[in-house]
Amino acid sequence: MNKPVVVRQVEQPPAEAVAALERFGVTTVHEAQGRCGLLALYMRPIFPGATIAGSAVIVSLPPGDNLMVHVAVEVCGPGNILVVAPTSPCTDGYFGELLATSLRAHGVKGLVIDAGCRDVRVLTAMKFPVWSRAISSQGTVKATLGSVNVPVMCAGALVEAGDVVIADDDGVVVVKRASAHEIAAAAEQRVRKENVTRERLAQGELGLDMYDMRQKIAQLGLKYL
Amino acid sequence: MNKPVVVRQVEQPPAEAVAALERFGVTTVHEAQGRCGLLALYMRPIFPGATIAGSAVIVSLPPGDNLMVHVAVEVCGPGNILVVAPTSPCTDGYFGELLATSLRAHGVKGLVIDAGCRDVRVLTAMKFPVWSRAISSQGTVKATLGSVNVPVMCAGALVEAGDVVIADDDGVVVVKRASAHEIAAAAEQRVRKENVTRERLAQGELGLDMYDMRQKIAQLGLKYL
Amino acid sequence: MNKPVVVRQVEQPPAEAVAALERFGVTTVHEAQGRCGLLALYMRPIFPGATIAGSAVIVSLPPGDNLMVHVAVEVCGPGNILVVAPTSPCTDGYFGELLATSLRAHGVKGLVIDAGCRDVRVLTAMKFPVWSRAISSQGTVKATLGSVNVPVMCAGALVEAGDVVIADDDGVVVVKRASAHEIAAAAEQRVRKENVTRERLAQGELGLDMYDMRQKIAQLGLKYL
Amino acid sequence: MNKPVVVRQVEQPPAEAVAALERFGVTTVHEAQGRCGLLALYMRPIFPGATIAGSAVIVSLPPGDNLMVHVAVEVCGPGNILVVAPTSPCTDGYFGELLATSLRAHGVKGLVIDAGCRDVRVLTAMKFPVWSRAISSQGTVKATLGSVNVPVMCAGALVEAGDVVIADDDGVVVVKRASAHEIAAAAEQRVRKENVTRERLAQGELGLDMYDMRQKIAQLGLKYL
Amino acid sequence: MNKPVVVRQVEQPPAEAVAALERFGVTTVHEAQGRCGLLALYMRPIFPGATIAGSAVIVSLPPGDNLMVHVAVEVCGPGNILVVAPTSPCTDGYFGELLATSLRAHGVKGLVIDAGCRDVRVLTAMKFPVWSRAISSQGTVKATLGSVNVPVMCAGALVEAGDVVIADDDGVVVVKRASAHEIAAAAEQRVRKENVTRERLAQGELGLDMYDMRQKIAQLGLKYL
Amino acid sequence: MNKPVVVRQVEQPPAEAVAALERFGVTTVHEAQGRCGLLALYMRPIFPGATIAGSAVIVSLPPGDNLMVHVAVEVCGPGNILVVAPTSPCTDGYFGELLATSLRAHGVKGLVIDAGCRDVRVLTAMKFPVWSRAISSQGTVKATLGSVNVPVMCAGALVEAGDVVIADDDGVVVVKRASAHEIAAAAEQRVRKENVTRERLAQGELGLDMYDMRQKIAQLGLKYL
Repeated sequence: MNKPVVVRQVEQPPAEAVAALERFGVTTVHEAQGRCGLLALYMRPIFPGATIAGSAVIVSLPPGDNLMVHVAVEVCGPGNILVVAPTSPCTDGYFGELLATSLRAHGVKGLVIDAGCRDVRVLTAMKFPVWSRAISSQGTVKATLGSVNVPVMCAGALVEAGDVVIADDDGVVVVKRASAHEIAAAAEQRVRKENVTRERLAQGELGLDMYDMRQKIAQLGLKYL
Repeated sequence: MNKPVVVRQVEQPPAEAVAALERFGVTTVHEAQGRCGLLALYMRPIFPGATIAGSAVIVSLPPGDNLMVHVAVEVCGPGNILVVAPTSPCTDGYFGELLATSLRAHGVKGLVIDAGCRDVRVLTAMKFPVWSRAISSQGTVKATLGSVNVPVMCAGALVEAGDVVIADDDGVVVVKRASAHEIAAAAEQRVRKENVTRERLAQGELGLDMYDMRQKIAQLGLKYL
Repeated sequence: MNKPVVVRQVEQPPAEAVAALERFGVTTVHEAQGRCGLLALYMRPIFPGATIAGSAVIVSLPPGDNLMVHVAVEVCGPGNILVVAPTSPCTDGYFGELLATSLRAHGVKGLVIDAGCRDVRVLTAMKFPVWSRAISSQGTVKATLGSVNVPVMCAGALVEAGDVVIADDDGVVVVKRASAHEIAAAAEQRVRKENVTRERLAQGELGLDMYDMRQKIAQLGLKYL
Repeated sequence: MNKPVVVRQVEQPPAEAVAALERFGVTTVHEAQGRCGLLALYMRPIFPGATIAGSAVIVSLPPGDNLMVHVAVEVCGPGNILVVAPTSPCTDGYFGELLATSLRAHGVKGLVIDAGCRDVRVLTAMKFPVWSRAISSQGTVKATLGSVNVPVMCAGALVEAGDVVIADDDGVVVVKRASAHEIAAAAEQRVRKENVTRERLAQGELGLDMYDMRQKIAQLGLKYL
Repeated sequence: MNKPVVVRQVEQPPAEAVAALERFGVTTVHEAQGRCGLLALYMRPIFPGATIAGSAVIVSLPPGDNLMVHVAVEVCGPGNILVVAPTSPCTDGYFGELLATSLRAHGVKGLVIDAGCRDVRVLTAMKFPVWSRAISSQGTVKATLGSVNVPVMCAGALVEAGDVVIADDDGVVVVKRASAHEIAAAAEQRVRKENVTRERLAQGELGLDMYDMRQKIAQLGLKYL
Repeated sequence: MNKPVVVRQVEQPPAEAVAALERFGVTTVHEAQGRCGLLALYMRPIFPGATIAGSAVIVSLPPGDNLMVHVAVEVCGPGNILVVAPTSPCTDGYFGELLATSLRAHGVKGLVIDAGCRDVRVLTAMKFPVWSRAISSQGTVKATLGSVNVPVMCAGALVEAGDVVIADDDGVVVVKRASAHEIAAAAEQRVRKENVTRERLAQGELGLDMYDMRQKIAQLGLKYL
């Protein structure tokens, strides 16, 4: 295992870009950045309707051991999203309402955890949003170190501290900090274009015509019977 | 691969039968037709509470390619349900709010897709019902043909154009067009019978007595201690 | 197979202990009893928000056959929770609104079934809570005996008649009847302690300090960069 | 449920076509018939290296009940493959060495079962090939009827009595009886063509050149760095 | 969590019964004891062809931590089978060739682990049999205690120290120590009966006739077409 | 999507380091580099017993489309391992014996594919090793571009062109090109140390004593009964 470390200083993504990415949501951002950075589909929200975006604080920790979550709280601040990735597949309930209370007190907007979460009824009542791979009452120990703010593979995606994490009912996507402005701009363009498209589709116009697909499908050899 | 075709003309099921099947819902219809036609259990609604029934417009298409969904919109009309089946297992997000807007403009009641769906928050707000095997932001390309209104295997069930698809919180079931009247009648009988049963059970009467099971379980050798 | 039997007389757990366990919920109880008795994570509620606790009436039955559920209703009474465990993995819809009506008429609070459930929209409207491994319209036959109130393995946990079953949005846990009082007391202590902890965390105090973890992580060799 | 029946008379596929399909194997046949008829990928052989093709005798039966397998043996004959499909998902061990002994005595070549199989060491020693979704010691009852030689959905594919089933290490595919000759011919052509291709590829020639793909990839915009 | 303990003294099952159970194998034993005690189907051998039976030495340990396996070796002796059960779902590679060398030096016959195993090529060469839920190179830490020879739930079955564990290509089954003699005798009877049955089936006799099923299926209403 | 590109020039890892890593195998290398770089456990060899290590040539391609595999062959050379990663989850059979023949003609040692493989019997006879997530006869199209030798996420691990891929019966692990020498050296040290350990364990010495664990477990509070 690599030496356990806590990286305290993390460069933050530009606030307006984060705000924009939150407004656009996961699917639009994922498209705008060329269809990369999506976490595995098993990452689901514990309640529907939440959308958040924020700068990632990362926790890499062993299966069944949440010692490092407590260590990470200290380096969290307003606007952060905590990203928790075990070093091997685990569904244990690392996180519940007490940690949510603590994170909220430090301004954290929500949690993305490639493991289990518990106290979901209380978390729902608190409106503290969590995306997890499982819901589990199974508790954890506090025996072994991991690291904070090192790069991790989380649910099949690479996440680095200060990356922008966006999460909503469609799932979770990660945008590199350095690309946040550019992706936000691309997403805005996409949304503008889709607004026009939506209007026309609502009038009954066909995608076949709008996207000029008739010639292509004829060339490819589609037969109408 | 078979030649890609679009079948434009599809015989429609009788409207009253469809309306009746919608009223009865998936489980009653599934029982009424002798327990066949049920799609795999992984087909789940993206939001709870919707019940729809309609005549199937079918799309058979490659994994990760939604070209044929656009082709299919043109042959959709009021009361239809779009049934989308990839030729191999796929969870990509073939479908989102723009296609829902387009389908709704043509009168389509909902979507059944053996793959992924995205923009679920907007679809929920639009009350456009979707039953899918996954929720995924992952977009698709528009490069390869498939077919519209050919028979397909969708989530383990055979579906043909003009079959009645019924979908609710219990899942999705398919009724052959030619049997729609007969199954609707059988479902109605079942419901009438269950109304009496429910009344008696609510009074505390036992199924053991109502269904005359005591003699059978004694013969089979059940011992009470 | 063991001889099929129905055990009519079951010693009941103390009512106040059951009421307390219901108030504390699954995760607190699971912790209070030393992290055992949790059912597999695939056991999920059919609607969110319900919490129940009650004395288990147990049904052991074959895959695809619900004859014994009907037998079990007769031995159910107020405050019971029905626990249904097939003898091999099965997702069929053993249970729907008619059986729920019958169980409710006999005072049963809810169902825990390591198999499928159907009529979920009606069950939701009735507020009859069910935790199941699947939602399925697939009906069952009534051909083969099983047993009532014998010990079973249900979703990976051992359950005996008269054990206290607690179920909420976090899952399902089982407490041995003889330990109900002791576990309720331990849970109460835990809750009291957590109330203090929550208050302090809400003020921004760190778990690192409250749980005195700084020395330990230093000893383990954590480096801050 | 539909009325339980046994169809005794089944039209058999032409023997030479079956022999040819066996020689070509699953993948070649699947390609030759336009990529349809493949069973779900969870259908795996219990030992490697077997390839069989034969006319399907079909058993539709309930979960956990193998009564109808015994009924089916009587209508099996030389060259048949038994295809067993439960009416709902099941992993029970319907089949072991005794039934294999019985089937072999009647000339059956192997078994395709969308459920469990047991005694795999003995079956391996007997060289009786089985493709199943599971290996399970869990036995079944003999209480409820099903049907023999009716059409079934087996592991996501439609199979009818007298269809040709081909199974090898790549999986299982079904060819309609009426198409057996045509598909065997198409498969033979495919094999001849591939023999030439293989020879050239073995010499180091590139698929890019053999399949004339360079112009296409240039048109699509591929850049070489 | 319960207090971590090591139980040194374990009553052993009778050696002849263990030898007999090993000879009969998993499926016969499972049937002979009334179809209980089977571990989940995901427990598969790392190589085919091994059959072992022995007295269980049990390790209950945390996910990702194999400290207690080392503790357990000391209490193992000739004829034992080590049974390892994590307290929550885990696929990590707790076990490899070094531990196998150590166990073999103490006479242990094999390993049953509801988690991962590694070095499978070497273990295969050593002919040290392992049944596991996963193969994984992921190592574990040695930080947290568990217990040895306490009762555990392993892959969905209850196992106690001194129980007889039987494992072969069909899976893994557990026989209570006190029942070992009785189950071995029942298994022997079963085998004798099956020897006769096999002989008759091999001659072409039908199960329908041998088991006298014709009247039953006629009464149940089976139609031959 | 990012622009499709083919990177022709890839810096190769040092040959002796690759040879050493192949000799040490997956688990030893994974440990030697601090337990990172392991691919998901569903990546399994199509036949047992192969061990390979080589420099990665990478293909990023769409689901169900193997156009880019043909493009990649041209940039493959002796000692390479082809690593194929679809942009979304896919089990299609991208690869069979013809492509294996082609790759072998160019000196490629094997394939790692986060999707399906077919013709496994022929590949086994050819001794061309493949690690895949599925075995599937389902063919692919050649319609859409992807990239060659760009960084990809493959089965949950980041792989870059020129990284060393090691694969054996334990799975697949990736070593960064720049670290190959260092990891090979660390692996060698580990092997030397394990040789001593193995010898002592084979003599019956306990890990408890060799690793000096008795004091630690006493401090942690383990009780012997």
